[in-house]
Amino acid sequence: MSAKSCPNTAAFLKGAHAAWLAAGREGDAIGYTWPVVRRRKLSLERIDARLGQYSFDASTPIAPGSWEGAYWSAQTALTALDAVLGGAPTAFALCRPPGHHAGADYLGGYCYLNNAAIAAQRAHDAGAGPVAILDVDYHHGNGTQDIFEARGDIFFASIHADPATDYPFYWGHADETGSGEGAGTTLNIPMPRGTRIDAYLAALETAASRITAWGARFLVVSFGADTFSGDPISHFAIETEDFAAIGARIAAMDLPTAIIMEGGYAVGDLGGNVARFLSGFADKP
Amino acid sequence: MSAKSCPNTAAFLKGAHAAWLAAGREGDAIGYTWPVVRRRKLSLERIDARLGQYSFDASTPIAPGSWEGAYWSAQTALTALDAVLGGAPTAFALCRPPGHHAGADYLGGYCYLNNAAIAAQRAHDAGAGPVAILDVDYHHGNGTQDIFEARGDIFFASIHADPATDYPFYWGHADETGSGEGAGTTLNIPMPRGTRIDAYLAALETAASRITAWGARFLVVSFGADTFSGDPISHFAIETEDFAAIGARIAAMDLPTAIIMEGGYAVGDLGGNVARFLSGFADKP
Ligand SMILES: [Zn+2]
Ligand SMILES: [Zn+2]
Repeated sequence: MSAKSCPNTAAFLKGAHAAWLAAGREGDAIGYTWPVVRRRKLSLERIDARLGQYSFDASTPIAPGSWEGAYWSAQTALTALDAVLGGAPTAFALCRPPGHHAGADYLGGYCYLNNAAIAAQRAHDAGAGPVAILDVDYHHGNGTQDIFEARGDIFFASIHADPATDYPFYWGHADETGSGEGAGTTLNIPMPRGTRIDAYLAALETAASRITAWGARFLVVSFGADTFSGDPISHFAIETEDFAAIGARIAAMDLPTAIIMEGGYAVGDLGGNVARFLSGFADKP
Repeated sequence: MSAKSCPNTAAFLKGAHAAWLAAGREGDAIGYTWPVVRRRKLSLERIDARLGQYSFDASTPIAPGSWEGAYWSAQTALTALDAVLGGAPTAFALCRPPGHHAGADYLGGYCYLNNAAIAAQRAHDAGAGPVAILDVDYHHGNGTQDIFEARGDIFFASIHADPATDYPFYWGHADETGSGEGAGTTLNIPMPRGTRIDAYLAALETAASRITAWGARFLVVSFGADTFSGDPISHFAIETEDFAAIGARIAAMDLPTAIIMEGGYAVGDLGGNVARFLSGFADKP
C-alpha cells in the first residue's frame, strides 16, 4: 500500500534510522535543515510560525542581541565597501556573524543579514559595476544566490563542497545557473570532500575566468577559512600556506575588491589562515 | 541599508526575540517548522540532507521502530477501510502514529505515513467513490491536502485552528481551494482559538453540505480529539459531550464511513472523547 500511495516516504523511512546510525549518530534521527524555496507570502501571527517563515534551519537562534550584532556586521561590510569605492584597491571586513546563508527573507546557517549581498548591492547602486560576487567559503552561499539568481546585473560564483553531502544541501548544485534575466549569471562549482589545493585552484581559475569574461568591474569576495584541512565541521584539505595562493589568484583578477568574512571554525588557526589569504593581495596594484 | 536589501528579514529580526519572550518562552528563539512547498527533486546522499528533504519540522524523530509502527498504523486504517468496503456502515481505525500531517514525500507533526490518504486512495481504487475526506482534527491536515489538492476525484475538507496562529502554519488558509484539476475540491475552514460547539457545528454544516453537494459516495474522516477544551496543546472549547453531536452530524451524511484516528493529547479524557464521538454514529443506518 505505502509503495503506491507514498513511495518516496516509505523508501526513505525504512532506511532512515539505519543511515543515521551508519553516520555515527545516536538516538533518534531528526532533521535540522529544510528546503524552503518559492514560499508563498502568508500573514502569520505566532512567533513560532514566523520563525519558520523567516528561516530554513534550526541552527540560527535569535538572542536578544542578534539584531544589533547582525546590523553592525553588515555595517562592517559597508565600511570596507566604502573604502574600496573611495579608492582602496582592497579592503577586508571582519564580519561576525557571517552572512552568506541568509536570503532576502530568511535566516539560516548562523547568518542573519547577508553582508556580501548588501555590500554588492551598494557597489551596484554606486555605479561601480558590473559587480561580481565570488564565494570561496567551504559551504555554498545559498542566501547570496537566492538574492541575485534572477538578476543579470550581478554575477554570483561559488566554489564549495558538493551539496549532495554538505550543508546547505538544497542549493549549490551545478545545474543552478540562474533564471530569467539572471540566466547564466550564477556559477556553481561543487567539489568533493578531500579537495586539495591543486583541484581547488583549477576550480578558482574557472570561476575567475567566467567573472572576467562577463565583464565584472567590481568584486565582492565571500571568504570562508573553513576550507582549511583542520576545520572541525568541514572536509576539504586546504593547508594554511595554500590560502596565499587562493588570495593571489583572486587578486590577479585586478578588480577593486571588498572581502567579506564568512565561515571558519578552526579557531586556533583562523587568524593565520585569514592573514595568509590576505597576504595574497599584497602585490595587488 | 538593511531596509533596502532585506526589508523582510530586518523587520522580523528586530522584533523576533521580544515576540518570543512575549509568547512566554525563555532563552533564544528558534524555529521548528518550515514551509517546504514545491521542492525540487534532488539526489542527496547525506542522511542529514535527506531528513530535511523528507520532512517539514523537527517534531518527528525517526526511531528504530518508526517504519514498523507507521506501516502497521496504515494497515490498521486499511483494515477499517476494508470493513466498510465489505458492507459495514462505519468502521473506526485506532491508528498510532497519526497520519494527516504526512505528505506523499514528507514526514511531520508526529506523522509518517498518511493513513487517511492511503485509505481514501484504496476506496477510490476499489470504485467506491467519489471519495471525500473530512478532517476534524484541531490541526489542519496539510499532508492530506498536499496529496489531493491537484486532484478533482477526491474531495478534501478540513475544519481546524487558524494556521495564522496554529500549527502547521503554512497550510490550511481559507484561500487554499485546490489547483488544476482539483480546483474547488479543497475546502479549508479555519476557526479562531476558543471556538465552541455552536460555531464548530456551523462550520461542520458547511463542510458536510459541500461534500454532499459534490456528490461524495464514500467518506474518510480524519478524527482528532484535540479539539477538546482540555487538550494541552490546543485551544478550542469543545466539551466531551459535544463530540457526540459532531459524530452525529457526520453520521447524518449517510455515507459509508471509515474513521481514522489522528491527534488527541488529553490522555486521561481521550478514551471518553473518542467514545462519545463514535456514539454519534450509533443510529447511523
Ligand atoms: Zn562555511
Ligand atoms: Zn491535531
